Amino acid sequence: METVQVNLGPRTYPIRIGSGLLSHLGPLLRDHNFAAGRVAVATDSNVGKIYREKTAATLTTAGFDPCFIEIPAGEEHKNFAWLSFLYDKLIEGRLERRSPLIALGGGVVGDMAGFAAATFQRGLPFVQVPTSLLAQVDSSVGGKTAVNHSAGKNLIGAFYQPRLVVIDVETLTTLPRREFLSGVAEVIKYGVILSPELFSLLEEQLSSLLRLDALLLTTIIKTSCQLKALVVEEDETEGDYRAILNFGHTLGHAIETATEYKRFLHGEAVAMGMVFAVHLSQQRGLCSAAVKDRVTRLIKKAGLPVEIPKTLSRDTLRLGIETDKKVAGGKVKFVCLEDIGRTRFEYLSAQEIVGHLRGGSQ
Amino acid sequence: METVQVNLGPRTYPIRIGSGLLSHLGPLLRDHNFAAGRVAVATDSNVGKIYREKTAATLTTAGFDPCFIEIPAGEEHKNFAWLSFLYDKLIEGRLERRSPLIALGGGVVGDMAGFAAATFQRGLPFVQVPTSLLAQVDSSVGGKTAVNHSAGKNLIGAFYQPRLVVIDVETLTTLPRREFLSGVAEVIKYGVILSPELFSLLEEQLSSLLRLDALLLTTIIKTSCQLKALVVEEDETEGDYRAILNFGHTLGHAIETATEYKRFLHGEAVAMGMVFAVHLSQQRGLCSAAVKDRVTRLIKKAGLPVEIPKTLSRDTLRLGIETDKKVAGGKVKFVCLEDIGRTRFEYLSAQEIVGHLRGGSQ
Repeated sequence: METVQVNLGPRTYPIRIGSGLLSHLGPLLRDHNFAAGRVAVATDSNVGKIYREKTAATLTTAGFDPCFIEIPAGEEHKNFAWLSFLYDKLIEGRLERRSPLIALGGGVVGDMAGFAAATFQRGLPFVQVPTSLLAQVDSSVGGKTAVNHSAGKNLIGAFYQPRLVVIDVETLTTLPRREFLSGVAEVIKYGVILSPELFSLLEEQLSSLLRLDALLLTTIIKTSCQLKALVVEEDETEGDYRAILNFGHTLGHAIETATEYKRFLHGEAVAMGMVFAVHLSQQRGLCSAAVKDRVTRLIKKAGLPVEIPKTLSRDTLRLGIETDKKVAGGKVKFVCLEDIGRTRFEYLSAQEIVGHLRGGSQ
Repeated sequence: METVQVNLGPRTYPIRIGSGLLSHLGPLLRDHNFAAGRVAVATDSNVGKIYREKTAATLTTAGFDPCFIEIPAGEEHKNFAWLSFLYDKLIEGRLERRSPLIALGGGVVGDMAGFAAATFQRGLPFVQVPTSLLAQVDSSVGGKTAVNHSAGKNLIGAFYQPRLVVIDVETLTTLPRREFLSGVAEVIKYGVILSPELFSLLEEQLSSLLRLDALLLTTIIKTSCQLKALVVEEDETEGDYRAILNFGHTLGHAIETATEYKRFLHGEAVAMGMVFAVHLSQQRGLCSAAVKDRVTRLIKKAGLPVEIPKTLSRDTLRLGIETDKKVAGGKVKFVCLEDIGRTRFEYLSAQEIVGHLRGGSQ
C-alpha cells in the first residue's frame, strides 16, 4: 500500500493506494479513528451492482452499520433533483453530524456526495473511494465538490476536503475501456504541465499502462496525486496558481457544453483541449513545434481524440468559453505550454481563443 | 464607527458598526479593496422597499454596478426553491467569481445569500449588511449559512466567512418592535453565558435599549459581536466549545419546529428555551434559584415570552429535540448554567430533557 499525504493544515488527509484495498475499507476506516456505527455509502447503479456486497461485508465486519444510497449512473444525474434525493436518504438513514459519508464510485458520485457531505448539517466527515481512473487522479486531491446547473457544469459547489481517500486499483479492471482512457488523459495532463519524468514514463510504458499493469497503475496514480497535491497545497481555493490544472479544460469544457455532455467523456474533451492548447501555444510563439508534436503524439497514441469535430462552430465554442466560471473581467486565464513541465498564463478573450481554431467551418 | 475584528487566520474579517453606515457602503467596500464593477445585492421585499434606493446610490457613486435580487420576506422562503431563484439571478446578472454578493437584510436573507455565496462557482466574496438586531449580533459572526429543509431548520448549510460586515444601527429604527425584541433575546444570551458585565448593563439600561438609544445600541452590538467572536475564534466549525452558543436553543428549536416557525420569532423561542434551561439547571442542582430568577426576570422585563404554551405536548417537543442536528449518539449536548457567565454541558437524552418541563399537559 502506498500513501500520499495531502498537507492542508487542519484539513490534512491521506490517500491510500493499492491493489485490493476495497476489501479492507472497514479496517482502514477504524485505523483512521472513525467510530463504529452508522455510515452512509453513496454509489451509482453501475458501481453498486459490482461492489456493494463486498463493501457492505468489510464495513459490517469492522462494526459499521452501512446505509447504501444509490443514484442512477451518468453525468445527467449530477443535478439538484438527485442532490435532494441524497439529502432525503441521509435524513431517512438518520445520519448524525459525526457519521461519515463515503462516496463509492466515479466523479459524478464523488462530486455530488462530496457536495452533500459539505452541506448536510453544515458538514459530515467525507471519505472518497474513487473507482474510476479519472476520479482517482483528479477528484482525490483538491476538495472540489459540485453539482451541475442548467447554465453550466459544476456551477454550484464548494471546496470541502475528505478525511480519507482509499484507491483500489483493482476497481479499474471493471471500468469500461473508454472511461479508463478518459482518466489517462488527465494523467497525461499532469506530465505535460508539471513533470517531464512522468511524461517520459508515459511515453515509454504506455502499452503496459493500457494493459492495466497493477504495479505501474499504483505508481502512476501515486505520482499524479502527488503532483496535484503540490499544486493544491500551494493554493487550496484556486486563488491563482491552481488554475494551471485547467490546462486543456477551457476548450474541453466548451466542447462538453456544446455537445451537452453526451458525445464525449470528460477526458476525451480535455484531450482535444490539450491538443488545441499546445497548438495555440505554438502559434503564439510560446512553445516549439517539437513540444507540440510530442504532446499531440502521446495523446493520439493513448487512443484519445485529437481533432475537434467540424460540426462545432467557432461561435458555439466561443459561447461555451464565455459561460465558463473562470472568466474574470471578460478575459480567460488560458493555460499555455512553454515546454513539457512548464506552463504560463495568457489572458485572452474567448474571441481570441477561438481565433486559433483550425479551418474555415470552425 | 466601531470595529470588531474576527480573527480566523486567512479568513479574518472586520465588522464595522455605527450610525448611518449604510449611506457609506460604497466607500467602505472600496476601502476593503473590492474592485469597482458588478456586485449583487440580495435583499427581501420589506428591506428592499426601505433601503434599496439608498444602497443603490452609495454603490453607484463609488463605481459599482449593482444588481438587486429581491426575495419575499419571511422564514418560509428560506428554502431550495428560493435558493434556486438566487442562483438563477446570479447567472442572469453575469456575476463573476470575484464579484461580491452583498446580503442586505435580516437572518433569512443573510443565511440564504451566504449559502448561495458559499456555493455559487464554489464561492463568491460575501459581504453582510445585517439590518435586524438578531442578524447583527448573531449572524455577523460565525460564518453559518443555511437553508431549511422540510425535515428541519438549517439542515442544509455551510460554514463560510464574509469578507466584511457593515452594521448600521439606524436600520433598527425601521425594524418591527417584535423583531427588535427577538434580537434582544440573543443579546441577553451573550450576557448570561459569557459576561456578567453585559448582563448587569442590560439589567441597568434595559429601558434605554428599548428606546433605541444609538450609542447604547452601538456598545451593546459591539460587545455581543466581540463575545461571539471569542467563542468562534476558539472553535470555528463547532467542534466542541462553540456549542455553548446553543444555550436556550435546544428547546427553542423544538418549539419553532412544533409551531412550524409561524407562532414565534426565533428570539422568542430562544427566550422560552433560556428560561427552561435555567429551570433545568436549577433542578439538577447546577445553579442557584437566585441565578435562575435573575435570568428569568430580565427576559420577562424585556417583553419576551417565558412560558412554553401548554398546547405543546412533551412528546411533540421531544421529537423536535431528537431531529435537531446537534444530536450525537442519541444524546443532546445540553447547555446548562452554573452562574451568570459560566456554563457547562450536560449530555442528556431528549426524554430526560422534556422530563424537566413543568405541568401535566406538557
